[in-house]
Amino acid sequence: MDKILRIDVGAEGGPAFREDPLGSYAGLGGRALTSAIIHAEVPADCHPLGPENKLVLAPGLLTGTAAASSGRLSVGCKSPLTGGIKEANAGGAGAQVLARLGYAAIVLEGERQGDDLYKVMISTEGVRVEKDNELKLLTNYQLMDRFSTVYGKKGAMISIGTAGEMGLANSTVAVTDMEGRPTRHAGRGGVGAVMGSKGIKVILLDGTGTRNREPKDPEAFKDASKRFVEGLRSHPITGQGLPTYGTNSLTNLLSEVGGYPTRNFRQGRYEDADKISGESQVELTAQRGGKGRRGCHRGCVIQCSGTYLDKNGQYLTKRVQYETVWAHGGNCGISDLDAIAQLDHLDDDYGLDTIEMGVAIGLAMEAGLLPFGDGKGAVELVHEVGKGTRLGRILGSGAASTAKALGIERAPVVKGQAIPAYDPRAVKGMGVTYATSPQGADHTAGYAVAANILKVGGDVDPLSAAGQAELSRDLQALTATVDSTGMCLFIVFAVLDQPETLQALVDLLNSFHGLTLTGDDVAALGKSVLEDERDFNRRAGFTAEDDRLPSFFRMEKLAPHDVDFDVPEEELDKVSRE
Amino acid sequence: MDKILRIDVGAEGGPAFREDPLGSYAGLGGRALTSAIIHAEVPADCHPLGPENKLVLAPGLLTGTAAASSGRLSVGCKSPLTGGIKEANAGGAGAQVLARLGYAAIVLEGERQGDDLYKVMISTEGVRVEKDNELKLLTNYQLMDRFSTVYGKKGAMISIGTAGEMGLANSTVAVTDMEGRPTRHAGRGGVGAVMGSKGIKVILLDGTGTRNREPKDPEAFKDASKRFVEGLRSHPITGQGLPTYGTNSLTNLLSEVGGYPTRNFRQGRYEDADKISGESQVELTAQRGGKGRRGCHRGCVIQCSGTYLDKNGQYLTKRVQYETVWAHGGNCGISDLDAIAQLDHLDDDYGLDTIEMGVAIGLAMEAGLLPFGDGKGAVELVHEVGKGTRLGRILGSGAASTAKALGIERAPVVKGQAIPAYDPRAVKGMGVTYATSPQGADHTAGYAVAANILKVGGDVDPLSAAGQAELSRDLQALTATVDSTGMCLFIVFAVLDQPETLQALVDLLNSFHGLTLTGDDVAALGKSVLEDERDFNRRAGFTAEDDRLPSFFRMEKLAPHDVDFDVPEEELDKVSRE
Repeated sequence: MDKILRIDVGAEGGPAFREDPLGSYAGLGGRALTSAIIHAEVPADCHPLGPENKLVLAPGLLTGTAAASSGRLSVGCKSPLTGGIKEANAGGAGAQVLARLGYAAIVLEGERQGDDLYKVMISTEGVRVEKDNELKLLTNYQLMDRFSTVYGKKGAMISIGTAGEMGLANSTVAVTDMEGRPTRHAGRGGVGAVMGSKGIKVILLDGTGTRNREPKDPEAFKDASKRFVEGLRSHPITGQGLPTYGTNSLTNLLSEVGGYPTRNFRQGRYEDADKISGESQVELTAQRGGKGRRGCHRGCVIQCSGTYLDKNGQYLTKRVQYETVWAHGGNCGISDLDAIAQLDHLDDDYGLDTIEMGVAIGLAMEAGLLPFGDGKGAVELVHEVGKGTRLGRILGSGAASTAKALGIERAPVVKGQAIPAYDPRAVKGMGVTYATSPQGADHTAGYAVAANILKVGGDVDPLSAAGQAELSRDLQALTATVDSTGMCLFIVFAVLDQPETLQALVDLLNSFHGLTLTGDDVAALGKSVLEDERDFNRRAGFTAEDDRLPSFFRMEKLAPHDVDFDVPEEELDKVSRE
Repeated sequence: MDKILRIDVGAEGGPAFREDPLGSYAGLGGRALTSAIIHAEVPADCHPLGPENKLVLAPGLLTGTAAASSGRLSVGCKSPLTGGIKEANAGGAGAQVLARLGYAAIVLEGERQGDDLYKVMISTEGVRVEKDNELKLLTNYQLMDRFSTVYGKKGAMISIGTAGEMGLANSTVAVTDMEGRPTRHAGRGGVGAVMGSKGIKVILLDGTGTRNREPKDPEAFKDASKRFVEGLRSHPITGQGLPTYGTNSLTNLLSEVGGYPTRNFRQGRYEDADKISGESQVELTAQRGGKGRRGCHRGCVIQCSGTYLDKNGQYLTKRVQYETVWAHGGNCGISDLDAIAQLDHLDDDYGLDTIEMGVAIGLAMEAGLLPFGDGKGAVELVHEVGKGTRLGRILGSGAASTAKALGIERAPVVKGQAIPAYDPRAVKGMGVTYATSPQGADHTAGYAVAANILKVGGDVDPLSAAGQAELSRDLQALTATVDSTGMCLFIVFAVLDQPETLQALVDLLNSFHGLTLTGDDVAALGKSVLEDERDFNRRAGFTAEDDRLPSFFRMEKLAPHDVDFDVPEEELDKVSRE
């Protein structure tokens, strides 16, 4: 994992590639690497779909090793959705295979010539880039049908659906899971459109003949790895909650505490939460013979995923996650799990971020295009997006554009990106993260739900403004570190509560790379990533005014607690401006 | 003109009004007044369609007097299109009647309750605000048919079409002309949507019993007025060019000098320019028995307007202006004047800015929705907007949103507002104005075409970067002053070239208001307006990065001169940041 594959899509006669040494990027991985490359090489004022932008795909520092739950792929660029820097990451098999093939990153760059589409094939034999216009407007599952024998059981596919190809600001980069299905997505910020703007439809990774990366100190690594796994298994969330119920275990909880944004953030509790909860989903899955406790990539010990079967017992989609259940469910007043699962499948197929899509549909409902609760109507809307109809173009441009086009004031977005499944008025730490993350509204950028609601890593009253800024700031730095290791974010539950698991993570990094980092060094890495990202955004024209929630969160009180978002602006500026 | 009419649309039981003294706003008019009120009273971070925004309608300091060409109405708010402060101004009869009725401004404010529509009626008898849901989704000409007997020959109507009512970011506030037709528009920045967000559909002004405002020093005013008119009549542009050909005299000229943005800014010269030129329009109008040399309001001595008759000799629209002929013509490759005139009529009827609309259609053409040159297709698209279809919602959200929805990189916009009819690469002074005006891309904010092309007020090579920043900076300050007087911007041609005409303007202000301003004082007024506007934008989150042109203007060369936009960023920052 000591080289960067650069594909210049503007080369004469079609895309050309070269392999560069890591050079000044040595020692970086995942988000640290994507953000460093974007920060150093992309003019902050460029157009996200123009020739100066780049798409960087990077496995983390521990990806492709035997370390548990380390299979994340970071995807970086200037975001078509936010206009700022973006790192979206995905699970699935892609990152591991890419790392084992020896690549620290793939960089798609240059100016696309004409409108031909290309596929990239990478194996131990080398790299091939081939024109393939038969791929035009294929969906992700259609690509799977076409290529699953190419990437096979040991490989992976990284692809864009129709949304990315059409340049929609809501469009993902899909990564296949352990079953070879395109169910894992670098979802947020429109990264798929940047891949589309480079004319690359699919990257096929053949893992045949590869093996795990070798640590510098195998014995120490093995020991650290064991302690790390023990830590994950012993924590109630990573060891029991997530394997049993998946992330959807949060639905009942968030509704109960009044922080579940319902019907476009009109109320904090959803009367039908139980119908779409993780508990109900597990029961339904069991009845139909579906599976839980499945990892999205090899070596995951948390195993929050699984399969969702339809009424006939046929595979419909992976175990639907909390954010998706919320975005398409409670946020739209839809209480039908089958409809939600179908929406999840369609989003994956067309290559759409479920959060952005669900919030856009919620806005269409608020505008009266269809009633809240209309699952069938929501399914039709996603088809409109995937097919690029005119209405689809509105919705597929994201929640902020949808609100603008429909003349709706109550757009729950920050930096143009839709706010996820925790109402910032009732989970104020999340409000701080939404407002101040350089990524735009993003729950994964600093998951304050931990200390606010789950009481992991501390106990900070979710309804009070006090302490939220410090909480979010520290979590954002920790997260930027974790996103650079390739570790799944869920490990933070164990890391926050168990000092010995944090030490095991540090030991994993040290023993693998032959380093002598301390816990402080690891924290410093995250801070420096955030500094790069904030500097890029500043150069792109972002100011403190962009680190704010929409005004309706301070003007409208949220039931049942009748709270508004009252974290002072000075507190917000502490997080990002000091 | 010593009071402000404030209509609180959120009052219990429906909109309520009160009349306030000018107070701290005394001495301000037009843009100086609208920008002062918005700066002081509207939180810069509010949502443009939310309860905290206000719509301010203000005649200029000399409006409603006997001074020639002084009938402009300034309309100010936080812009739904740019997110910054906005002043759009319009001719027509509205400003004069409002001033004669004694109002320095109308302010629409507060939070609309429910979705009822209201009409406001103002006469010497007083003010009435009445619910009238029969007005829902009426167009401006339909409103004219309904109300022309109400406002009559001595009155005026200020209204929004369907676009403003639907909250579209491209939507105007229409003002009736001397014939009572809704042909004059405060066009830019989506001011109509803000009026719509307040639930006010129409303001009917009855001028019966009003008379010209009285100057403090009638003799001196009469003398200054005479000198001012002489100045306008003696300058070749205001005395001959504009009356004879209207603003469309620019079409052949701009194409000739290679600064005419053709087919979405792909080239600087349009091969069919002559077919849609002012000369051709005058000839066609004469053949059909139409009129030229008509003012848009009483007392205009420039008289650049007139009527455009269709093939059957029936009124179709007013004399179509240069920007509209360009936006719907050359920018879309449409060379059919009748189609362009029809588009102008539809824009006026639905309440759409012709520049924003034409540029959005050009982008739809670039995206392949219809071919360049398709006049019939363009007409259909405007109907889609006016009727609020899904495609219409995209286009009606403005050029930037259209480009985003259609995945097009080459969006000619600054601060989200479409660039008008002078390519910034070949008329670089205009490029500086587009980039640095707090209003977003706006030719009227600092009309560098004067010195760049017309050689009025100086001679600055349009193809060179040298001297453009100073030129634009000075013009922006002068313009802000003129926009505050209520004078038509076209007077600047005479004022720039003839010191005695500038002096006459200063004398008009002094003798009317009993002041002793010097030329320097007058310039200082414009600068202070710009300072307020820039301060608002800073608080709304704008930075130097927003004072830039889209990158394609520096990356793509423009034929025939093969020039790019090369004014250095430091020069741009001189204009707005020093």
